[in-house]
Amino acid sequence: MALIVQKYGGTSVGNPERIKNVARRVAAHRAKGDQVVVVVSAMSGVTDSLIKLAKEITPLPSEREMDMLLATGEQQTIALTAIALQQLGIPATSLTGAQAGIVTDGVHTKAKIQNITPKKVHALLDAGNVVIVAGFQGETAEGHITTLGRGGSDLTAIALAAALKADLCQIYTDVDGVYTADPRIVPNAQKLAEISYDEMLELAGSGAKVMQSRSVEFAKKFGVVFEVRSSLNDNPGTIVKEETKSMEGAVIRGVSLDKNQAKITLVAVPDRPGVAARIFKALAEATINVDMIVQNVSHGAGTPATDLSFTMDKPDLLKAAKVIESLKSEVGYREALTDEKIGKLSIVGVGMRSHSGVAAKMFETLAKEAVNIEMISTSEIKISVVIELAKSEQAMKAVHKAFIG
Amino acid sequence: MALIVQKYGGTSVGNPERIKNVARRVAAHRAKGDQVVVVVSAMSGVTDSLIKLAKEITPLPSEREMDMLLATGEQQTIALTAIALQQLGIPATSLTGAQAGIVTDGVHTKAKIQNITPKKVHALLDAGNVVIVAGFQGETAEGHITTLGRGGSDLTAIALAAALKADLCQIYTDVDGVYTADPRIVPNAQKLAEISYDEMLELAGSGAKVMQSRSVEFAKKFGVVFEVRSSLNDNPGTIVKEETKSMEGAVIRGVSLDKNQAKITLVAVPDRPGVAARIFKALAEATINVDMIVQNVSHGAGTPATDLSFTMDKPDLLKAAKVIESLKSEVGYREALTDEKIGKLSIVGVGMRSHSGVAAKMFETLAKEAVNIEMISTSEIKISVVIELAKSEQAMKAVHKAFIG
Repeated sequence: MALIVQKYGGTSVGNPERIKNVARRVAAHRAKGDQVVVVVSAMSGVTDSLIKLAKEITPLPSEREMDMLLATGEQQTIALTAIALQQLGIPATSLTGAQAGIVTDGVHTKAKIQNITPKKVHALLDAGNVVIVAGFQGETAEGHITTLGRGGSDLTAIALAAALKADLCQIYTDVDGVYTADPRIVPNAQKLAEISYDEMLELAGSGAKVMQSRSVEFAKKFGVVFEVRSSLNDNPGTIVKEETKSMEGAVIRGVSLDKNQAKITLVAVPDRPGVAARIFKALAEATINVDMIVQNVSHGAGTPATDLSFTMDKPDLLKAAKVIESLKSEVGYREALTDEKIGKLSIVGVGMRSHSGVAAKMFETLAKEAVNIEMISTSEIKISVVIELAKSEQAMKAVHKAFIG
Repeated sequence: MALIVQKYGGTSVGNPERIKNVARRVAAHRAKGDQVVVVVSAMSGVTDSLIKLAKEITPLPSEREMDMLLATGEQQTIALTAIALQQLGIPATSLTGAQAGIVTDGVHTKAKIQNITPKKVHALLDAGNVVIVAGFQGETAEGHITTLGRGGSDLTAIALAAALKADLCQIYTDVDGVYTADPRIVPNAQKLAEISYDEMLELAGSGAKVMQSRSVEFAKKFGVVFEVRSSLNDNPGTIVKEETKSMEGAVIRGVSLDKNQAKITLVAVPDRPGVAARIFKALAEATINVDMIVQNVSHGAGTPATDLSFTMDKPDLLKAAKVIESLKSEVGYREALTDEKIGKLSIVGVGMRSHSGVAAKMFETLAKEAVNIEMISTSEIKISVVIELAKSEQAMKAVHKAFIG
C-alpha cells in the first residue's frame, strides 16, 4: 500500500464535469489499495473573478484581506472534489490549508511554508478517507489565513508529500510531462522519462514554465521525487528527482526559448569600481528582476570604458529604461540602447559537465544558421545565448536537431 | 463610546457598489466614536450558485462538504467589506466564524451555536479595528466548519452581541422595520417603534417573515435588544425587546396573513384514545411541519366520531395527503378533504391578555365582511383564523382597520 499525493491544477478542476473526472482518477488509485491525498487549485477563472471584485472596490486592496478572499477559491474546489468522490462511494474529507496543518510566515499573498503538522491528514487517512487539501494556502501561527503566491498549489503538494513521507507525488497538469523542447515549436521534441531537479530548475528559469522554480527547489531541498503528468490521459509523465549517474549519458536534457525578455545595453560605461553595483542596486530597488548580465572588457584610449548589457522581463523594459536614464549623469555612460526583439535560447543538461565542446557545438550550429549571438551566459549545466527574436525559433529547431534529434 | 453589532444581509452586500455603501454606513457610526462589529451574509446569489455547482455533481451532496463549500460565500463578503472600509481609511479586519470563536455542535447545515469565545474580536476592537465577522458559520470543537442554516447570519449577530455584551445590535434588511401589517396589502399599515420578543415570534410564526424565529428566541433567551432597520435609508427601525408595561397600551401589535398554508380535514374519525397520536406521529415521521390542529367535539349516534382538521405549508400538502391515505384503514375515518385555497389571518399583541372581547371583536369584524371562519386557534397573545383565500386580503384590511386604524 503506497501513500500518494496528487495535485490537480485549475484547468483539471475547471467545472463539475472535470471534477468528476478527477474523482474517477483518484478512485482508480484507491482501488489499487493506495492511500491518496489530493491537492487542488481553485477552479480556473474563480481567482480572477474574485480579484476583479476586489479591484472594483479599490485598485490596491490589502494583502491580508486578499488572502482571506482568494483562499475561498480552493476551499470551494476541495468541497466539490470531496462530494464527487463520495458520489463514487469513496469516503472523502476536505481540509483547508489551515486544517491540514500548513503553517506559514505572515507575508500575505506570498507566504512561505514554515512547517506542516499533518495530524488531521494522518488521522483521516488511517480512518480510510481520501483527504482533499486546499492548495495555495495556509495560516500563520497566529491564525491568519495566508496564500503562497504563484505556483502555490504545486508547493502545497510537494511540501505535504515531504511531511507525510509519501511514496509518490504526482503533479497533474495539461501537458504530458517535461519535453526536450516546446513541441509547438520543435515538432520532434521528446518527452523526458526523467530529469534532475537542477535541470528542471534551469529549464524553468529559461522560459519552459511547466512549474515554478520554488516548488522544484523545495522538492530538491527535501528530496521529494515527483512526477509531472497529464490529467487528460493515462500516459506516464516525467519523473523529477536527484541527479543519477545514468542521467549524464545525455549531454543535453532540453532546449528552451524565452521570448519574453528585453535587453538594455549601456555604451561606454566608465570602467571604475562601484559602477555596476550602483546600476543594479537601483534596478533592484525598482523591483526589476534582472536576468542575464554581460560586461565586455574595457577598450579604447583615454578613460577606460566598457559596454554593459543586461536582460529583464519585457514588461519591465520601460521602467528599467527610466531607472537607467535617471542614472546617466551620475554614472556617465555615453548612451543606452534598448531592444525588445530578442530571444533567449538555452540548452540545459547535467551531462555537459563531463562533455567538452558543448558550447562550441551550439555556437557552430547557430553560425550555420547565420544567427548572430548578442550575449552569452553560462552556468555549470546551462548555456544561454541572446539572439535576434525573428530567427529564434529557427535557431531553436537547429540546436535541438544538433543535440537531441 | 458604544459597542455596536451590525448585520447586513445578502442584498445589502450584493455587489461591490453596495459593499461600499455598507462601509460608508459603518464609517459614519465609527466617526461618532463607536466600536463596530459587522456581520455579513454571502453576496446575494453566491450561495445559490454554489449549491448549483454541487448539485451538478450529485443531487445529495454530503452536509459536511456543503458547509465547507457554502462557508466560502460569507468569507468572500467579509474580505471585500474589510477592503471597502480600509479604502475609507478605517482600520478593519475580517474574521471567519471559526476565527471569531463561534463554536457550534456538529449538526452540519443547521448547526446550533454552543458558545462564543470572542477573544480575537475583543483584541481587534481594542486595537482600533472595525471587525467584520462572517455570518451563518462556525466550527465544531473538533475544527470542522459548520453552517447555521436559515437565518443564520441574524443569529450570528445576535449571539455575538450577547457574547460581546454589545450596547446595540442592528439587523439591516430591505424593509424599514416591523409593520402592523404587510404594507403591500394594508396601505395604512404603520411601522412599529418597538415590539416584544413574544409578539415578534408570534408574527414570525404567522407569516410575517422579517426574521426567523430562532434568532428572536435566542435574543429573548439572552436578553439581546435589537433593532430591525433598512440599509437603504436612515429611518429608525423597530426595537425588539422584552415586554414593558407601556406595550400593553396597544391591544393589538400587528396583523399577519399567511397565504402559504393548506388544510386537510378528516371527516368522521373514530373518537378513541391514540388516534390523534397515530396520525401526527406519521406526519412528523414524514417531516411534515403541522401548524394548526383543530378537533371538534364528537357528534352523531353510534360510535363516537369527530372531525379533525390541521394545516401545513402548502408544498407539503401532497405528501401529507399520501400519509393520511396510507392510514385510512388503520384509523378508519370516512373521508379526507384537502383545501389549499386558505389563508391564515392572525392578530398578535401582548395587550390582549388584559383586554377582554378581542376575539369577539375580530369575529364580528369578519362576519361583517361575510367571511366564513373555518378554523380558530388561540394562544395567550395571538388569535388565528383560517379563512377562504379569496377573501383573506379583504379580511386582513378590515381587521387592521378595526384594531389599529
